[in-house]
Amino acid sequence: MLNPRSDALLFGHLSDGATLAHARARKLKRVVVVDSVVHQLHGERIEAYFAHHDVETRLLVLPTTEENKNMDMVLTIAEAIHDLGIDRRLDPVIAIGGGVCMDIVGFAASIYRRKTPYVRVPTTLMGYVDASIGAKTGVNFAGKKNKLGAYVPPALTLLDRSFLGTLDARQLSNGAAEIVKMALVKDAELFSLLEEHGPSLIEGKFQDRPGDVESNAVGAPSRVLTLAIQTMLEELAPNLWEDSLTRCGSTLAVVPPPLTPTTTVPVCHSSRLVDFGHIFSMELEMEALHSNKLFHGEAVAIDMALCACLATVRGHIDSSIRDRILAVMRGLRLPTYHELLDEKMALFAIEERIKFSQTIKMPLPVGVGASRIYDDISSDEIVAALAMAKGLSAEPEFSP
Amino acid sequence: MLNPRSDALLFGHLSDGATLAHARARKLKRVVVVDSVVHQLHGERIEAYFAHHDVETRLLVLPTTEENKNMDMVLTIAEAIHDLGIDRRLDPVIAIGGGVCMDIVGFAASIYRRKTPYVRVPTTLMGYVDASIGAKTGVNFAGKKNKLGAYVPPALTLLDRSFLGTLDARQLSNGAAEIVKMALVKDAELFSLLEEHGPSLIEGKFQDRPGDVESNAVGAPSRVLTLAIQTMLEELAPNLWEDSLTRCGSTLAVVPPPLTPTTTVPVCHSSRLVDFGHIFSMELEMEALHSNKLFHGEAVAIDMALCACLATVRGHIDSSIRDRILAVMRGLRLPTYHELLDEKMALFAIEERIKFSQTIKMPLPVGVGASRIYDDISSDEIVAALAMAKGLSAEPEFSP
Repeated sequence: MLNPRSDALLFGHLSDGATLAHARARKLKRVVVVDSVVHQLHGERIEAYFAHHDVETRLLVLPTTEENKNMDMVLTIAEAIHDLGIDRRLDPVIAIGGGVCMDIVGFAASIYRRKTPYVRVPTTLMGYVDASIGAKTGVNFAGKKNKLGAYVPPALTLLDRSFLGTLDARQLSNGAAEIVKMALVKDAELFSLLEEHGPSLIEGKFQDRPGDVESNAVGAPSRVLTLAIQTMLEELAPNLWEDSLTRCGSTLAVVPPPLTPTTTVPVCHSSRLVDFGHIFSMELEMEALHSNKLFHGEAVAIDMALCACLATVRGHIDSSIRDRILAVMRGLRLPTYHELLDEKMALFAIEERIKFSQTIKMPLPVGVGASRIYDDISSDEIVAALAMAKGLSAEPEFSP
Repeated sequence: MLNPRSDALLFGHLSDGATLAHARARKLKRVVVVDSVVHQLHGERIEAYFAHHDVETRLLVLPTTEENKNMDMVLTIAEAIHDLGIDRRLDPVIAIGGGVCMDIVGFAASIYRRKTPYVRVPTTLMGYVDASIGAKTGVNFAGKKNKLGAYVPPALTLLDRSFLGTLDARQLSNGAAEIVKMALVKDAELFSLLEEHGPSLIEGKFQDRPGDVESNAVGAPSRVLTLAIQTMLEELAPNLWEDSLTRCGSTLAVVPPPLTPTTTVPVCHSSRLVDFGHIFSMELEMEALHSNKLFHGEAVAIDMALCACLATVRGHIDSSIRDRILAVMRGLRLPTYHELLDEKMALFAIEERIKFSQTIKMPLPVGVGASRIYDDISSDEIVAALAMAKGLSAEPEFSP
């Protein structure tokens, strides 16, 4: 990682030779935003990398936590970009950290001079399999998650699995929730890998196991990560800008997706399988910011467990599949219930969705590695699912 | 204007019938941002329009001046959008005001939920011929003009010339500077129309003259406005996102421009004819914010006059053409010199350009209605041009 001979971070966003030559001839300037914790662990290597390349670096070490994910931090970064006086066509801003760090830095770069390229270097599992993929950037606003932001993809994303080796189990579980999500909605192979190898993946911090010379070895961490990222790409590619209505019939409709679409999801619908686990969890996560802190993936897991119960209540899956889903989550040390997510919060989350989108469309599991989107979910079903989720969490053999 | 039977403001951004039907069936919600001065003059009619259509309106009357063009005002608008709880696919935010108002509102909508449609209704001549065209939105930051923003085109722009009838002469002259710009860089017909009819256009506030039944009548205000907008569209269309480097070789390179390109400007260059008058004026305008206030168009006119002198110093035009250029500006009651734009400021403006773009490429007039871009301008030439501009402004027959 951060090999001094690699030019990826410095030039990886440039696509043609002439420009590369021009860029190499200049004194390089880089604003590098590093999360405080990442800096403690990897700061020395990061700084050595830029020093080796004789880059004029403005290093910003920031506490990029959910609580600080706001416009103030965006403006702090914009000021640093401004002070360094970069060329907005040649000098990408670099984010080294988790999803929050990449979201904030991506947004700051996206609005500075109306668009400055940026590079994502995820250091968490959540960043690696989820936040680094797609075009979304943003910050929280008015007490709501990611209400301000932009759809601007990074110039480059650098995936370096060795960063994951310094994460603790809770952080790994947090990211694993998004892997579970992709397994549940559309990938039976991924589901069975998690079912069999989940606990050892967390234990081994997604690093190669002795003997994992083949990256596609059964249960190899790299195979799990590759599947998770591939399925996510497939889901996001056909509608990267989430522009359902404005996209249809507009000039954007003719833009070929930057990633090859291999999915059957139609371009023009506004609900997506990747929204699984992200309906009730938004409220829960914001609420938990002020009391019992929950990680994003933990809130998503609690939402997914509720949805597995909802699918059972509605008869889409039977209780044996539901229990396998809950067992996969527990194997990854994820919570499956939280008392804050009660009837009031669940129904409020639905109302908020309806307020902004007129309708509520929810993906629900319909089997192992398969899901469908439903728009006819009733309050009664949600209430029954909540009771089921609570009941199952109370059973001793199921306690996390 | 604002005809109660017209649906343009309410539905004009939707392109397909089914969506329109859906939109009509809902209770409409609109955040409408109106500049304070415009509200004094036209508020009653604007409110009657939305009341007639039974629209749930959040009317924000804001002092959208250059001094207030900042992130605070963007967040005020974002909060109003959030409070009203609009559907970000169906409920565009409406800006009714000058260029500053449209820039701020466009930026707020562009970042709210990562992209909310907005509608521009320009009420100033500057807004009509310049700010309403193209994809730029933004606010000032770190003491610099438009350093934060987005390239997001409006869903709709509604051009209503009757608004111009309530402008005073200075505001009309301000907008006329951008018409002069397009005339100078590429439209000899527009130049001669301004030469002949400039004073009467300002006098008549760009409203139809008695007998102007044909909108293309010689010297008719509508002909002048049409030419100004057409030439601006031609220049902006091939590179609407100003993405020169990132655009070449990226997915964006295959996007057909939303407007028909009819110009010979190559897609991949970063300096543009529409930048004429906008190099020295940026510094001058920001400086003048704190002392003698200048309108944007006035600063542009002073920059253009300096560039006409620079073109004369360099031998691209002779003094007779230079004097015709200055006379057109004076006929439109525009200033051609300002003592704040001195050697120090002019050279600093050049340095700033070089800092951000490595090179300085300036459009300069090379005849009547013709210009070219040069990259070999020397400090000595700028100093000589400044002396020439100052000398000409001191001649009694030329004083504004």
